[in-house]
Amino acid sequence: MAETPIRFGILGCAGIARKLSRAISLAPNAALYAIGSRSLEKATNFAASNGFPESAKIYGSYDAVLDDPNVDAVYLPLPTSLHIKWAVLAAEKKKHILLEKPVALNVGEFDKILEACELNGVQLMDSTMWMHNPRTAKMKEFLSDPQKFGQLRSINAVFTFAADQDFLENDIRVKPDLDALGALGDAGWYCIRAILWANDFNLPKSVTALPGTIFNKVGVIISCGAALQWEDGKVATFHCSFLSNLTMTITATGTKGTLHLHDFVIPFEEKQGSFTTSTESGFTELVTGWAPLPSQHTVMTDIPQEVRMVTEFSRLVKSVKNGGGVVEKMWPTLSRKTQFVLDAVKVSVEKGGEAVSLS
Amino acid sequence: MAETPIRFGILGCAGIARKLSRAISLAPNAALYAIGSRSLEKATNFAASNGFPESAKIYGSYDAVLDDPNVDAVYLPLPTSLHIKWAVLAAEKKKHILLEKPVALNVGEFDKILEACELNGVQLMDSTMWMHNPRTAKMKEFLSDPQKFGQLRSINAVFTFAADQDFLENDIRVKPDLDALGALGDAGWYCIRAILWANDFNLPKSVTALPGTIFNKVGVIISCGAALQWEDGKVATFHCSFLSNLTMTITATGTKGTLHLHDFVIPFEEKQGSFTTSTESGFTELVTGWAPLPSQHTVMTDIPQEVRMVTEFSRLVKSVKNGGGVVEKMWPTLSRKTQFVLDAVKVSVEKGGEAVSLS
Repeated sequence: MAETPIRFGILGCAGIARKLSRAISLAPNAALYAIGSRSLEKATNFAASNGFPESAKIYGSYDAVLDDPNVDAVYLPLPTSLHIKWAVLAAEKKKHILLEKPVALNVGEFDKILEACELNGVQLMDSTMWMHNPRTAKMKEFLSDPQKFGQLRSINAVFTFAADQDFLENDIRVKPDLDALGALGDAGWYCIRAILWANDFNLPKSVTALPGTIFNKVGVIISCGAALQWEDGKVATFHCSFLSNLTMTITATGTKGTLHLHDFVIPFEEKQGSFTTSTESGFTELVTGWAPLPSQHTVMTDIPQEVRMVTEFSRLVKSVKNGGGVVEKMWPTLSRKTQFVLDAVKVSVEKGGEAVSLS
Repeated sequence: MAETPIRFGILGCAGIARKLSRAISLAPNAALYAIGSRSLEKATNFAASNGFPESAKIYGSYDAVLDDPNVDAVYLPLPTSLHIKWAVLAAEKKKHILLEKPVALNVGEFDKILEACELNGVQLMDSTMWMHNPRTAKMKEFLSDPQKFGQLRSINAVFTFAADQDFLENDIRVKPDLDALGALGDAGWYCIRAILWANDFNLPKSVTALPGTIFNKVGVIISCGAALQWEDGKVATFHCSFLSNLTMTITATGTKGTLHLHDFVIPFEEKQGSFTTSTESGFTELVTGWAPLPSQHTVMTDIPQEVRMVTEFSRLVKSVKNGGGVVEKMWPTLSRKTQFVLDAVKVSVEKGGEAVSLS
């Protein structure tokens, strides 16, 4: 007997929901079940063009999705300012939640979401897809190897993309009432997540916004960066922006090794992902070249990272359903730490680059 | 009739002088002519093991090299604190100067060197080898292309290497009376030079040391970083350290393109150098990969960068000798700008990360 898949309802027809719809339909333990939009027509069109089955429920409101007793879980790609309302409501309706990032406008809001999830025995995971790429696990193996990488000393993360004029004027990510965190919440989220990931999610002792933050006319960050510092002397920097060509780079240095990759958020190619490592690098005689040379590692990813994410989330949801309510706390904890550091960067930006202590 | 090569005298037997000796002997317009050390024995051994001709002059003092009327130019790899004394003396003896970096302990000292050079019609060039790699010119072409790269928006440079215990205790670069600028003067010099190079040597409006500077027991910087900011919103960061595995990375983002390379100071291989570019990068349908993909460019370097440097320096010296004293001002200007920014980083470090204005 085939396992019943986790039935997903999607709230809203955001562009990113197209990618997630495909991922849900490809995940063996998940199924596209319902789509809700404030416009029934939009929902109908979305379902038709994104592989929803004939039997899928098409709703003209988000509430209707949450009220459908057959919906196990919702994917929530709404603007960040709406997360608190709809995630809390979803939790209250016992819907498990796959939540787009940033998870909230601030940790205070996210804590209310978490409270509702805990109260209702609901699994929450944020939609940071690259965390689920098998390449990520391979890179972590390298970073955790005392012989190959040693202790982490520094990390730089860059995530930028060149938004076009329409985006810069009309996208939800440049609107103070929608995704008020702008480039920091969007691209910066990934940089902060990568930095924390490389640090085994140990929080920095302080966060300092870098000079050069750029705001749009209505005060939303469209370019910024920060420096993070740990008790033990580790340092990190990141830069995120809507104003530079697409770039997704990590450079991590350890006492013994170095890690590089240039597509950490979305791999260049769907079916494989690479990264470069070096260990105890030195020079040839007379310093005319390197010895040993760095090595490139390629990890096959026949199952795309977003499909793995949906599969893992669905597995956890299934386990909650079967086991009577035991949720996996790791994922919400990672979300909260990312948001916590992101909040601190925002505070430092607002204070003109003053260091913000996290201890 | 073959051209007379420029006759080099080397002051001191520093490790790096071995690489330069080879470069001088490979450069078609330069010749190893003299070596001076405070120890005649060291000078003799150095000459014997570094390809000096039988006829080379071996001197037991630096003064003797400067007093030899046949020496056209000196290569000066002495500890930074000695640059002012020996570079000024060399200039006064009309010796053209190839000067190791950092060029001085501060711009004030360097200005005295420059004054002596100007007064005596002496050509000065600092020994930043990668500037002379043909790859550098190719990268600059890309960065200057309004269609392929657009306007520079951000740049991150990392130069670290894992010094061993002996280095950390005994190398001149950890001694306050020798190379007092430590990792900033050594590795940081290259990062600052790269950042300025990418910015067409326009100076930033301000420089801010990043949190996390590490000093050794005698107060010399062994790890630090800084953020630089330009009037037009461009930003740069760098990290330099003696405490991380060898890493030499540049990530530059422009409005239309991105540049990456991981061996900017010393190419992985002597005979070729690569870099990666991307232009107007975007995603495939459904954002499951990149389109277009980045492209790798390889530049053949049959003549190593340090040989090109010596050749160019010797060409300029020859032209001064032939032309009656017209020196090329560009090289000392680049040296001075690099030192100027480096000084500002040091001041910001000393002020605990306060922004230092350069305007």
